[in-house]
Amino acid sequence: MSLNDNIKTPKTVSVSVSDRGFTYGDGVFETIAYTNGALDHWSLHWQRLILGSKRLEINLPDENYFLAEIDRKISQESDVTNQLATEQLTKNKVIKIIVTRGEGGRGYLFSSKHKSTVIVTVHSWPERSIDDYKKGIKAIVCQTCLAKQPALAGIKHLNRLEQVIARNEFSETDYEEGIMLSCSEHSSKLDRILIEGTSSNLFFVKNNQLYTPIIDTCGVQGTMRQAVINVAKQRGLVVKEDHFSLKVLKTASEIFFTNSIFGVVPVSSICINDEIQWNYALNRISGVDNFQSITGLLMMTINKNLNRPTF
Amino acid sequence: MSLNDNIKTPKTVSVSVSDRGFTYGDGVFETIAYTNGALDHWSLHWQRLILGSKRLEINLPDENYFLAEIDRKISQESDVTNQLATEQLTKNKVIKIIVTRGEGGRGYLFSSKHKSTVIVTVHSWPERSIDDYKKGIKAIVCQTCLAKQPALAGIKHLNRLEQVIARNEFSETDYEEGIMLSCSEHSSKLDRILIEGTSSNLFFVKNNQLYTPIIDTCGVQGTMRQAVINVAKQRGLVVKEDHFSLKVLKTASEIFFTNSIFGVVPVSSICINDEIQWNYALNRISGVDNFQSITGLLMMTINKNLNRPTF
Repeated sequence: MSLNDNIKTPKTVSVSVSDRGFTYGDGVFETIAYTNGALDHWSLHWQRLILGSKRLEINLPDENYFLAEIDRKISQESDVTNQLATEQLTKNKVIKIIVTRGEGGRGYLFSSKHKSTVIVTVHSWPERSIDDYKKGIKAIVCQTCLAKQPALAGIKHLNRLEQVIARNEFSETDYEEGIMLSCSEHSSKLDRILIEGTSSNLFFVKNNQLYTPIIDTCGVQGTMRQAVINVAKQRGLVVKEDHFSLKVLKTASEIFFTNSIFGVVPVSSICINDEIQWNYALNRISGVDNFQSITGLLMMTINKNLNRPTF
Repeated sequence: MSLNDNIKTPKTVSVSVSDRGFTYGDGVFETIAYTNGALDHWSLHWQRLILGSKRLEINLPDENYFLAEIDRKISQESDVTNQLATEQLTKNKVIKIIVTRGEGGRGYLFSSKHKSTVIVTVHSWPERSIDDYKKGIKAIVCQTCLAKQPALAGIKHLNRLEQVIARNEFSETDYEEGIMLSCSEHSSKLDRILIEGTSSNLFFVKNNQLYTPIIDTCGVQGTMRQAVINVAKQRGLVVKEDHFSLKVLKTASEIFFTNSIFGVVPVSSICINDEIQWNYALNRISGVDNFQSITGLLMMTINKNLNRPTF
């Protein structure tokens, strides 16, 4: 029996209400950029799918199964929209993969022989203003914290209520991303530990050194985060991963978010509360020579390579 | 427009793969006992549904909508099984209600005008051995901890990966419930804070005083937990709710779990690790006169009243 015999791919775009993805959030997912007829950073997404399904003991089909399924869905998409297949194939799309432990089981208990549910869907590309890349975005520190749960840290699982609550703290504002800190008893927000954005990872530069929060107690190990770490290394830059409190960002010279769809996006300001805002002047993150800033270097390599906007 | 115009009840037993219950676990649920043609503790379940949907800002239909929907599903069930309706109606069933924030939204962001999804399903009654009630069950302390997240504490939301992982630590053993502690940096398990069972709440008795962990940083405020607190109060017993470390159970005279389906179930032993097991002798939780023990008193009132087994 091949690995894939144990996988159920629903023919429709619905799942049973007894699917454990629905009843318990018992699964993992990936959001992958499909640009110019190819998947961006597939191997990083695939590695994280393996990490997540191993951690949760969810049966995973093999790599070729996913690649064939994505191809099939992209072709279907072309048929449905009734456009020229070639035109359609060059359009940017977002591919979402969800793998759950499948239907049923007795309560929380599952069988190692469960039949996983695999869902692959194709979504339109969310266009982002070029100004976000050229001028940076405004971010706000969320009140909602990320609970420390080492058993779930790093993987991209389907239990996302913390992100839902945090993202909606700044709906109907012009903040474009929220910074999440880990839950702690520290009374001062400034002393709490930085983790990530609501749907992105966070990096900062201080004294020409690149830093990013370590993802060991909560947060997601983003694929674009890994791509930045890899590219930085190739360029002779070491990324220091550690626990940092929020206040470290006050004296940072550059801050940026990373996300599989948007690539590297610089930050122009962070709202701490009603009274405090930290600004990151454009000349700190840009310059006549883009390579004067680390954000510039990374945008000129990663974003350019992936056809995302740069400065 | 009535409150219920904004609710979508799928006709089939499936939901869209873009339902936020599936993509993010963005919803709440209830598991309700239906015995002898009536719902047990409906008002406690309804109060918790209100608590959860308010906390998550999920639109909830009114109470009558749920009651009518449950009636309809119970009748359907009778039709399907093609038995006498009266016979069917007296059979014990489990009713599960799931309310999610409905389909879509842009990423984690949601609209206050979202159309909630409401699912009501009827399940067979899980029979439990009478010996569990007469002799008590064996419990084990789980390695998987409950992360401290005050924003989600108390409510019965759909992000249940911690319980899934914890429950499967003791699959294929004869332990019937796992005790979960909150995540902490304490190196000794004995110093960590007691929270609940994987699918139940926990009470203990010491020097004739009834105690239960306070549900303020993690855990679920169970309806049967509330029923026990209410009944105890009527009997002149005060239940002390506080933070207790695991080691307090070593010198407890009685321990029991509560759950909306099983009622009150006594514990006969707790496995701490490979070397340590604490036993709770039957004569400590029973006796010639059941009212000698608090567990006995509660089983003789709550369980008996709900037609669950007693000693």
